[in-house]
Amino acid sequence: MTQTQSPGPLFTDLYELTMGAGYYEHKVFSEATFSLFIRNYPLGRRYFVAAGLEDVLNGLSDLHFSESDIAYLKSTGLFSEAFIEYLKGFRFSGNVYAMPEGTIFFANEPVLEVTAPIIEAQLIETFLLNTVGFPILVASKAARCIHAAKNRQLVDFSLRRTQGVDPGMKVARNSYIAGFSATSNVLAGKRLRIPISGTMAHSFVMAFDDEVSAFLAYSKTFPMNSVFLIDTYDTLKGARNAVKVAKEMEKKGASLVGVRLDSGDMADLSIKVRKIFDDAGLPHIKIFASSGFDEYKITDVISKGAKIDSFGVGTKLGVSADAPYLDIVYKMVRFKDNDVRKLSPDKATLAGKKQVFRKYDAKGQFQEDIIGIREEHMDYAILLLEKVMEYGKCLRPHPPLEIIRTQFSENFELLPETYKSLDHQQPYPVSLSKRLSDIQEMGLDR
Amino acid sequence: MTQTQSPGPLFTDLYELTMGAGYYEHKVFSEATFSLFIRNYPLGRRYFVAAGLEDVLNGLSDLHFSESDIAYLKSTGLFSEAFIEYLKGFRFSGNVYAMPEGTIFFANEPVLEVTAPIIEAQLIETFLLNTVGFPILVASKAARCIHAAKNRQLVDFSLRRTQGVDPGMKVARNSYIAGFSATSNVLAGKRLRIPISGTMAHSFVMAFDDEVSAFLAYSKTFPMNSVFLIDTYDTLKGARNAVKVAKEMEKKGASLVGVRLDSGDMADLSIKVRKIFDDAGLPHIKIFASSGFDEYKITDVISKGAKIDSFGVGTKLGVSADAPYLDIVYKMVRFKDNDVRKLSPDKATLAGKKQVFRKYDAKGQFQEDIIGIREEHMDYAILLLEKVMEYGKCLRPHPPLEIIRTQFSENFELLPETYKSLDHQQPYPVSLSKRLSDIQEMGLDR
Repeated sequence: MTQTQSPGPLFTDLYELTMGAGYYEHKVFSEATFSLFIRNYPLGRRYFVAAGLEDVLNGLSDLHFSESDIAYLKSTGLFSEAFIEYLKGFRFSGNVYAMPEGTIFFANEPVLEVTAPIIEAQLIETFLLNTVGFPILVASKAARCIHAAKNRQLVDFSLRRTQGVDPGMKVARNSYIAGFSATSNVLAGKRLRIPISGTMAHSFVMAFDDEVSAFLAYSKTFPMNSVFLIDTYDTLKGARNAVKVAKEMEKKGASLVGVRLDSGDMADLSIKVRKIFDDAGLPHIKIFASSGFDEYKITDVISKGAKIDSFGVGTKLGVSADAPYLDIVYKMVRFKDNDVRKLSPDKATLAGKKQVFRKYDAKGQFQEDIIGIREEHMDYAILLLEKVMEYGKCLRPHPPLEIIRTQFSENFELLPETYKSLDHQQPYPVSLSKRLSDIQEMGLDR
Repeated sequence: MTQTQSPGPLFTDLYELTMGAGYYEHKVFSEATFSLFIRNYPLGRRYFVAAGLEDVLNGLSDLHFSESDIAYLKSTGLFSEAFIEYLKGFRFSGNVYAMPEGTIFFANEPVLEVTAPIIEAQLIETFLLNTVGFPILVASKAARCIHAAKNRQLVDFSLRRTQGVDPGMKVARNSYIAGFSATSNVLAGKRLRIPISGTMAHSFVMAFDDEVSAFLAYSKTFPMNSVFLIDTYDTLKGARNAVKVAKEMEKKGASLVGVRLDSGDMADLSIKVRKIFDDAGLPHIKIFASSGFDEYKITDVISKGAKIDSFGVGTKLGVSADAPYLDIVYKMVRFKDNDVRKLSPDKATLAGKKQVFRKYDAKGQFQEDIIGIREEHMDYAILLLEKVMEYGKCLRPHPPLEIIRTQFSENFELLPETYKSLDHQQPYPVSLSKRLSDIQEMGLDR
């Protein structure tokens, strides 16, 4: 199922097209391989989660210039008639190797490699980086939240503050892959069949004469699905009002699911609210909390003994606030049957078509990764890059979201605990195979 | 012209719909007014630029539930048949006051106010916040870059690293409003008629036998539009190679536009490259620079004497990296003919339908803003909120992008210089009128 409509071939930086025109005029059609990878870890991060591949494959499968695209390109006056004719018939005909979505990976490891005639491989650069960058970023951040929450439920509440429409969809999808239970985003519920979750806003409470009236009204509409927001006036009074209404509900065979805290000292308030419910003989009422949560604040309130069953995680997840972008790049590594690389200061790349090999320790945990050359054999290692597209055609249907979610969860179990901590300094061991190292020294730098 | 397709009414948090169901069942249909504003300045910011209104008005004009939306909502089992029937006929029928795009505004000032039957006013909350939040954020950041660049040209290079597809379009549009000259985003060129700009990547240089061959090839394809990337191997050698090719081009009646630096010490390299061109009698060759620029790095390299004519501004603008979200909210301020407000800790709001009045000093510069009540009169003040929608219909066509851009530029001239500095601490003076203050004290807090 397509998550977002493919934006088409004009969703690109102009230079991809001007370079294409240069290649075309000079008859440069040789095959090139490009490698997509992340150069560095954002502060505090020690792993990434592969994501975004479904949109990549959908976009590449259907890549073509519409009549209006062609008309626009002509109108710029930049391109020859012959090149415009070439673009009319343009399709992506290359091969793609990629890590399946949900795979845990590390800096400098290629998460995707493309081999195609150079014009094609180049033209898709901007689309590829844009399409996998944010999903990787947000899946990785969501995994950190999941780890911090220690088996408490997390719900995506980010939609109002994401940086636009498709990021809102991508946060719902990729936080679900990482283990979130639900999203507040109804469109994601419809398109991706992710469970949806929602409570009430302060305005609802204010639209009735008093808090009890608002709770009663809501419980009548949602007798088995109500979560009351209790901080509009005073959280502890709100909790006592919730008790009153919960007891009324029980007389009618209804049942209050929970309450939500949205301001104030979350650890302290949640402990007090828990006690109010327990003292009233209502231990089944759950406490939801929202308001600025991310992996750091979740860790903090849990360490203070917060009695919170479920966290709404919003803005800071939705824009990956502490690390809002990745140093993700797409670089040519092989051209005309020669391995190549770039040497610009601080931006050097690794030549050659690659594979990533993962070795496990005796307990079955990740031990080390080795970046090797594509056709290398390595004993006792799992290969992370799979061939997913050949001659522009997908090799198999994309796995359903639930499968990706399960695969991530199983994968995450095998990442040693030390790399999951929020401030771990030591990077996971990633080395180069001897064969890949040897290539780098072979005078490629013309 | 629509910039991005409206995402429809399911692009919402579930609670907007569950609250709607509660209101519907309890026959709560009274008119409510909601105010959309930013509670605080992100670190270092002292003004905002209004943006995103065109998408808001397009979305509200056409807001309706499709058959598949209705089918999905039924399938959730959350809603009564009667409410589902109501949703089938749902349209937005309210009034909207808003600041025109390009208006400079400040924290706590309503940038948009909606008056509508409460279900309608509530349902659009998530859509409104999402639709104006990022455009305001990026237009404001772009304005800071424009100010820092002191009349040098800026080009949006962010597309590969934005947090998705529509953010890429929104960065192109809103940085153009703020004064950027062009974008690398070809789709924005097509849809929004923004000038497009592009050069070449390192891979292009690497695809030829040497740098000179690559430059020659490119110049043949783009005799009057070439910008050479000169840092693939060594920036200063690259500059000397550019001189060679530029001289060849002149013999054929062509002309090199410029070169681009993409790594290394930008101030130092640009000074040396400028000297190479000037010494070669090629003073017309322009120097473009990219690589991690934002308002801070632009300020830094200019202060070091960089000879840069045009900056490519990418990732850090594209995600507003130093402040990736706004504390933007949408709060009920009037209901059933009563002014209302919320008192949650640190989240208090201002009751009442409002207007923002701007006063100017003797030189015509902004002097102070006063938030008053909607129908208040104030001498010598400009009213910032305009009625843009009545009974769900737009009152006039949306202004073309060029007009918004000009209006912003004229507006920005009038903002005193002190508030434009990158680290100004003192906020611009915004006060409440006596009439608005009086409302806040009238025992609204039920």
